[in-house]
Amino acid sequence: MKHMKSEDKLLVRALRGETLSRPPFWFMRQAGRCLPEFREIRAKAGGFLDLCYNPELATEVTLQPIRRFGMDAAILFADILLIPDGLGQPLDYIAGEGPVLEPIRNQAELSRLSMDGLHDKAGPVYETVARLKSELPENVTLIGFAGAPWTVAAYMVEGRGSRDHANVKEWAYGDPDGFGRLMDLLVVATVEYLSKQVDAGAEVVQLFDTWASALSEPAFQRWCLEPVQKIVEELRKRYPDLPIIGFPKGAGAGYANFAKTAGVDGVSLDWTVPLDWARDQVQPLVTVQGNLDPRLLVVGGKAMEAEARRILETLGQGPFIFNLGHGIVPETPPEHVARLSEILRG
Amino acid sequence: MKHMKSEDKLLVRALRGETLSRPPFWFMRQAGRCLPEFREIRAKAGGFLDLCYNPELATEVTLQPIRRFGMDAAILFADILLIPDGLGQPLDYIAGEGPVLEPIRNQAELSRLSMDGLHDKAGPVYETVARLKSELPENVTLIGFAGAPWTVAAYMVEGRGSRDHANVKEWAYGDPDGFGRLMDLLVVATVEYLSKQVDAGAEVVQLFDTWASALSEPAFQRWCLEPVQKIVEELRKRYPDLPIIGFPKGAGAGYANFAKTAGVDGVSLDWTVPLDWARDQVQPLVTVQGNLDPRLLVVGGKAMEAEARRILETLGQGPFIFNLGHGIVPETPPEHVARLSEILRG
Repeated sequence: MKHMKSEDKLLVRALRGETLSRPPFWFMRQAGRCLPEFREIRAKAGGFLDLCYNPELATEVTLQPIRRFGMDAAILFADILLIPDGLGQPLDYIAGEGPVLEPIRNQAELSRLSMDGLHDKAGPVYETVARLKSELPENVTLIGFAGAPWTVAAYMVEGRGSRDHANVKEWAYGDPDGFGRLMDLLVVATVEYLSKQVDAGAEVVQLFDTWASALSEPAFQRWCLEPVQKIVEELRKRYPDLPIIGFPKGAGAGYANFAKTAGVDGVSLDWTVPLDWARDQVQPLVTVQGNLDPRLLVVGGKAMEAEARRILETLGQGPFIFNLGHGIVPETPPEHVARLSEILRG
Repeated sequence: MKHMKSEDKLLVRALRGETLSRPPFWFMRQAGRCLPEFREIRAKAGGFLDLCYNPELATEVTLQPIRRFGMDAAILFADILLIPDGLGQPLDYIAGEGPVLEPIRNQAELSRLSMDGLHDKAGPVYETVARLKSELPENVTLIGFAGAPWTVAAYMVEGRGSRDHANVKEWAYGDPDGFGRLMDLLVVATVEYLSKQVDAGAEVVQLFDTWASALSEPAFQRWCLEPVQKIVEELRKRYPDLPIIGFPKGAGAGYANFAKTAGVDGVSLDWTVPLDWARDQVQPLVTVQGNLDPRLLVVGGKAMEAEARRILETLGQGPFIFNLGHGIVPETPPEHVARLSEILRG
């Protein structure tokens, strides 16, 4: 039973372009703060990074939602900022504030980063992937992931979450060659990091570009689309059959061009994307994934169910993976996730 | 010279659908913190609300950027939260934090609001419009404005700026009838408030829906698009020739449907909107306005100039108003605004 081939699993079939009568589903950030059993392990682990780098506990929290809700895919429990951490940029998580890094805003600060320690630092993450591969139910697809370079750079330059991304945008707009060196490093690091995940057993990878909406069109092209193209191209050389999902959150009408040119197999849609438009302009090009507003999962009831069914009806006629439009929020009642999963399992 | 007709001014001609060889321009939030002469008046006025409600000073800060940069339009200096203030919801501005209101989250709290005091409270704003009308250079169009109901409701329910708009979305998604009563009140209040601005001399009005991107598609339709439709419909009955601009920031691919169905003459595009797409899908329906990333105005130089020229070339072939994709940020060097204005005056 452990030997069901990747290509026979629902998620991979959808990403190969198959229209399935029962589309696969998973939820972004499905391992996380909405589950009491997660909070218990989190408390046991110490800090958030300690949990990311603890293969036993990271495996456990990845498996928890699969046991409860029976999704078709599990996504590795990790964080998009493990790459900067692995490159040598000091990283901390502060309660109530989120990630805090020592900002990198010039060539001197950039020159302190190095690929040398990446795999050592990320070793426990690769081990988590290997453990998951052997412990997951045989029909569940294992997804590896990384942040896309633009979003990772945004955190690296700002030093924390930001509303306006003033520093990173001023660097990217004002000194594109200098900023490009940081981005080049991130492209290389991301390829290496994802390759190790694939070597360890990840069957699909997703690139999260949470801050894609910060950039105007030519900058989106250069700093969101092109780095993803490069990563996809290099991964394809190494793993010709690896399905890859891109998530340029907030790309708006730019989703169509992203789907056309990024080279990915699937595109994850945020909850603002109109469904008819996605069906007509994006789904003919790639498999689409999405896009329930996570806030509807908090609200639950008829509002959630009606929207879930509308999404299924509109996008389910083509290659489609049901998901949220962004991550589950901590205050989501687990019983709403259970109800949605029940609807999606059909 | 004071009697140049509205319909002969560049901004109104563009909004009537004319393609102009030198498109008109103005900048969102052009009166504001990037100018030292503004900061001087602001300090003199006392609090931010004191400035909004002081016709002499509000007129002065509206005129300041016109004197410096020669834009084709002046926008009334005011704030989108003057409507809640006029409806009786206590409002304060706290330095470093922005607006703070006593949140309204249920029918009992909603029932405390009333239209009765709106015009008394907003009287000084209407007086500012009247003063501006007589003091503006004759070729400059006077723009009045209000927040669109969804965005105003978001502040009223959250009580302050919010990243996730959890409370207002949970109310809107979970109890649409109850939330609809707040929205109905805001539609009526907005029509009355804008009508008084038009009576006082506003030649164009703009509706700002800053948080349009918070909502998923059916909710965008109901809480962003429909209220704007109702406001436009009522204003058209009263002022058949009034040009109206809508700004559903972050509407993404939803901009096309908004342009098609909102009933507005112009649509303001945020900086993420791809220009070719806007030219092909939006500009055939309405005049487009936008969309330079305000951060490029901070950076200045070649990056700013190249993008400004790209916008002019792509959108200048049809009915078009040059603007930013959102408001000027405080740290913008005024000399960059001067340089951009010089380019735009041709």
